[in-house]
Amino acid sequence: MADVRGLSYRDVGVDLDAADRTKEGLRGLVESTRDANTLSEMGLFGGLYAVPPEVANPVLVSSADGVGTKLKIAFRAGRHDTVGQDLVNHCVNDILVQGARPLFFLDYLATGDLDGAVVKDVVSGIAMACRENGCALLGGETAQMPDFYGANEYDLAGFIVGVVERDRILDGSGVVAGDTLIGIPSSGLHTNGYTLARRIVFDVLGLDVDDVFPGQDRTVADVLLTIHSSYQALLSPLLGEGIIKGLAHITGGGVPGNLPRTLGPALGATIELDSWTVPETFRFLAEAGRVERDEMFRVFNMGIGMIAVVASEYVDSIVDRLSAAGTAAWVLGSVRSETGVSLV
Amino acid sequence: MADVRGLSYRDVGVDLDAADRTKEGLRGLVESTRDANTLSEMGLFGGLYAVPPEVANPVLVSSADGVGTKLKIAFRAGRHDTVGQDLVNHCVNDILVQGARPLFFLDYLATGDLDGAVVKDVVSGIAMACRENGCALLGGETAQMPDFYGANEYDLAGFIVGVVERDRILDGSGVVAGDTLIGIPSSGLHTNGYTLARRIVFDVLGLDVDDVFPGQDRTVADVLLTIHSSYQALLSPLLGEGIIKGLAHITGGGVPGNLPRTLGPALGATIELDSWTVPETFRFLAEAGRVERDEMFRVFNMGIGMIAVVASEYVDSIVDRLSAAGTAAWVLGSVRSETGVSLV
Repeated sequence: MADVRGLSYRDVGVDLDAADRTKEGLRGLVESTRDANTLSEMGLFGGLYAVPPEVANPVLVSSADGVGTKLKIAFRAGRHDTVGQDLVNHCVNDILVQGARPLFFLDYLATGDLDGAVVKDVVSGIAMACRENGCALLGGETAQMPDFYGANEYDLAGFIVGVVERDRILDGSGVVAGDTLIGIPSSGLHTNGYTLARRIVFDVLGLDVDDVFPGQDRTVADVLLTIHSSYQALLSPLLGEGIIKGLAHITGGGVPGNLPRTLGPALGATIELDSWTVPETFRFLAEAGRVERDEMFRVFNMGIGMIAVVASEYVDSIVDRLSAAGTAAWVLGSVRSETGVSLV
Repeated sequence: MADVRGLSYRDVGVDLDAADRTKEGLRGLVESTRDANTLSEMGLFGGLYAVPPEVANPVLVSSADGVGTKLKIAFRAGRHDTVGQDLVNHCVNDILVQGARPLFFLDYLATGDLDGAVVKDVVSGIAMACRENGCALLGGETAQMPDFYGANEYDLAGFIVGVVERDRILDGSGVVAGDTLIGIPSSGLHTNGYTLARRIVFDVLGLDVDDVFPGQDRTVADVLLTIHSSYQALLSPLLGEGIIKGLAHITGGGVPGNLPRTLGPALGATIELDSWTVPETFRFLAEAGRVERDEMFRVFNMGIGMIAVVASEYVDSIVDRLSAAGTAAWVLGSVRSETGVSLV
């Protein structure tokens, strides 16, 4: 039976007072993301956000995502302020490809033992990316789950809601064979393929996070924690002009897994492998892990973070404008009437 | 270095084909929750949902939640079709207390090895509760994270978005000292206090899930997996009439932690302990774990799932109507001008 003193929640690893203090410490971060439509203060059961009145026929676009095992790199490096940015940027891109701009974001952070400093670092990253993307951090859940997560480990998921005018939804319906595919660079692995990358870097090669990444002048942690790019600021002006027919965010499944989602069931694509240079990180992982080419393309983004589908007549002006914004833009290939994605 | 064959994603525990098959198997469940405002099919980057045009000044109410370590009971019992209902109902209640009705829901399900049958059971529970609450299952993320979660273990989080007319937001602003607190029963522990309950039941008492719960005619699994009640169907008619001033969903932190959220910073409450009977399950846990009374009230809901704050003149009619709907309703006490919650 129980000891004489009896059990408390804290005895079994859940400290409600610490949780309250931690939450209180996040108030400033949450407040820093407020906008005119944010109607609630922190700490209510649900967050309140007014549908922007300037949108005539508002359609909400929503997505849920996690950071995956990129978190394991953060744990190993003891660096917790970037994964929140990965998460928000990933979610922002997932609704951008349907033409939406972000309204608000909520996070789910599940920990074993609640380390207030780690939680604050994670939420700092979330809040920073929310500010950068014009998105209110409306709420979230911080769960204490001892015996579920190891010491200093956590899982992190996010949920975004954006809005688009009903007649401006980007659904690829205007895409036809002959349209051009423009690729926009990723910053690194983004948030996909980490279980394979970790196996290669840590197990096959025996490297650790502070080692120099072979062939580069950055550490393993710097290479593998590079923040997932947001394409919101870059692409929303082009979306506003209606000159993009479809967008594909290159996440799990790679180019072959994600591009078809914007082409619809009747069309496919041909991608020319010499149209861009696969970044050194991916080439190194392929060689060190002896990973086959098609597997690399299914697991990793291979340097392409986003693909825009555009009518041929707009290609030059879009490439010029992206270049002027400081971003490379590659003409990767074109849409074809045969389904599937061929790498040639 | 790598073996001769080279590494694949599947070798390291991530099976994209299995994931695709599993997702395809969920299509019918997702479709079963569609409503007239659901504009997207499954499988897009984000889900699309039209803001209901009949709401003149729509305010979105959103909440994120998890199931916590109640999941450990589900793992131990091998019963995976109830936790999704816990999750949805919890989220529905969290926005109901601000006057909102649910529009759509997204889930985050993170697994070690992806067991298609388990995923389907979990999503079945989610879809069932979505249908019951009039809520579309708009999307979700199923993450394969080997070496993060144990075999046949997973974490589960949910995100809900609801809507309320701007002038019908329930924010407790009309609550005054002297108002009456009406308690509505919980079905059991709901989703809180499981880390302590598990310690008492499994470690202190040495019981397992198939044993009879002491003093009851149900097994430990049946008692501890009892589904978190949704109060949507019961309370939305009363909300529509405007006769409820505030609602508190009794979750983590218990009555003392949650009731103040609807009373605001200037008011408190007196709860009379003889106004309802604490259910046997809580009394047994307190005794077996020698848990102090105040700790019990902070960790568990103690039989009260929701508290409504109402003007005294409506008490009799509300209690009568709840009773007619088959639900007990207890006059727990009243709002007072002194802050804090006293149990007397």
